[in-house]
Amino acid sequence: MPKEKLSIVKIGGNIIEDETSLNDFLKLFSKLEGYKILVHGGGKRATSIALKLGIQSNMVNGRRITDAETLEVITMVYGGLVNKNIVAKLQALNIDAIGLTGADINSILSKKRPVKDVDFGFVGDVKKVAYQSINKLINANFTPVFCAITHDGNGQLLNTNADTVTSQLAIGMSPIYETSIYYCFELNGVLKDINDKNSVIKHINSNTYNQLLEQGIIADGMLPKLENCFDALKHGVQTINMGNTNMLTQENDNFTRITL
Amino acid sequence: MPKEKLSIVKIGGNIIEDETSLNDFLKLFSKLEGYKILVHGGGKRATSIALKLGIQSNMVNGRRITDAETLEVITMVYGGLVNKNIVAKLQALNIDAIGLTGADINSILSKKRPVKDVDFGFVGDVKKVAYQSINKLINANFTPVFCAITHDGNGQLLNTNADTVTSQLAIGMSPIYETSIYYCFELNGVLKDINDKNSVIKHINSNTYNQLLEQGIIADGMLPKLENCFDALKHGVQTINMGNTNMLTQENDNFTRITL
Repeated sequence: MPKEKLSIVKIGGNIIEDETSLNDFLKLFSKLEGYKILVHGGGKRATSIALKLGIQSNMVNGRRITDAETLEVITMVYGGLVNKNIVAKLQALNIDAIGLTGADINSILSKKRPVKDVDFGFVGDVKKVAYQSINKLINANFTPVFCAITHDGNGQLLNTNADTVTSQLAIGMSPIYETSIYYCFELNGVLKDINDKNSVIKHINSNTYNQLLEQGIIADGMLPKLENCFDALKHGVQTINMGNTNMLTQENDNFTRITL
Repeated sequence: MPKEKLSIVKIGGNIIEDETSLNDFLKLFSKLEGYKILVHGGGKRATSIALKLGIQSNMVNGRRITDAETLEVITMVYGGLVNKNIVAKLQALNIDAIGLTGADINSILSKKRPVKDVDFGFVGDVKKVAYQSINKLINANFTPVFCAITHDGNGQLLNTNADTVTSQLAIGMSPIYETSIYYCFELNGVLKDINDKNSVIKHINSNTYNQLLEQGIIADGMLPKLENCFDALKHGVQTINMGNTNMLTQENDNFTRITL
């Protein structure tokens, strides 16, 4: 029997920050057919609330250094403010949403990142996704909404990159579902020419990826993103889609689809 | 077939505020046998964080006036900070906890309180408890941890008194469970003499309640609490227990048990 499909959709900070963008996105998400999971962070909001509370945000290589105070802000903003407002909005759209951190139903267990050159503080690297527990929610027709927080199993919440939560969920659920990821971001997709927003590369696979690399078309921020994508594809994920939120509509094919 | 038992335990702000008290309570809660639900608020923490953010807390008759800014703080503190830390701590005690607001799985639907003498702002009065949806979580061996936030079904979160959430959950779940409430607070129970903390009245029923009223023993803050209790008992709740957290241990009988 073929596996059923499960879509895992990640939204970035720009969508969360803007009420209209968020509402528009949630309407599209609510219409997406089949089983689905939403993943969000909330870094920009966390930064602004931390600032108001007099807590400075320290970033190293684009990652937040999460001291105890910062973890409190993240727990408030991601787990409370952003997550619960999304859940309430989805309920109004007839999606029976349930907001989760990795601590809830022990869904995402992680390990505090060891201190090497940088002490990232309370940051977790994912160890295990409890796919059977998550599947109990899906089977009950609930739609999980994950924020980018995990836990270590010993009572400690840990900040975890939202892209990573997304790919780990997609890998983790792949034993029982045919999983696809939708990374919604500002661009229309992976671009051939960074200065031309309409130069979307519609399909990338392992072969074309290597060609794009050789041609120097993929570089900078897109490089680690795509490496993570191929890693997820090699570990059971079926398809990864990158583009703006309109890729969730069936009419629009102007986004990047990535397969092995 | 007799109904199975479900305990609904509410903890007050004093327990939440103090890490040691909270840890001690959670150990007791984790050992409580049978199906169970935890309910918490977090008003004191919300007040202090609101203060840091420059938002003033306005109380009328002991109830918080919830303007839009205050609702944001409550959503952050109750739904995020307090709830998710409790969930992570319960996971470490091998309780498969899941943190919820009334918006999650549409579990507690409420109606924004109409403006009469006072405009309470974004405060909700409970309309409906989705006992079948909550029961799906319980049947999956998850332990729900509710914070005192509900929603109106149209995308709006609403602040709701934690005692009320507790009694409404107990009433709401009573068609399928024999429900008992445990109100954990600072006192050892309902006291005969307010100046003697050991003068606990161990059992109150409708008859003895009327006698206590006539004798003027029950007054002030205890009066509305007990009226709410009898209301819950008349609507399907089996037993209500009031006392300190030690009432959760089987050895201790020094608390107040209230029945019809």
